[in-house]
Amino acid sequence: MADIKYEIIKEIGVLSENAKGWRKELNLISWNDAAPKYDIRDWAPGHEKLGKGVTLTKEEVEMLKEIL
Amino acid sequence: MADIKYEIIKEIGVLSENAKGWRKELNLISWNDAAPKYDIRDWAPGHEKLGKGVTLTKEEVEMLKEIL
Repeated sequence: MADIKYEIIKEIGVLSENAKGWRKELNLISWNDAAPKYDIRDWAPGHEKLGKGVTLTKEEVEMLKEIL
Repeated sequence: MADIKYEIIKEIGVLSENAKGWRKELNLISWNDAAPKYDIRDWAPGHEKLGKGVTLTKEEVEMLKEIL
């Protein structure tokens, strides 16, 4: 996992924050210089470390919005 | 990962389906008999295999709904 390059293109929102300051966030992220995807993931304070998460396409985000 | 027990309590919706029939789904799932959590994850046809994903609390889902 150490070789993955990413850039947070847009911080869309924070879903929650735990006692250690890790936040579950929805962001728009470019992985390895690819086209940006939506991403729900845990992040350490200041985005210094990242946890597991899912990436979502624009279409998947739109379906999710419809379902919720 | 083989020892994780889960039960799909409610199938809420399908976000997408790929060429191999795997679907990205939003479900309510009980992991290891714990209280059910919302879950966005890839699933093989018939829920025979599961991929990576994120679990979300009710509060996180509500924040997500607000953000989207």
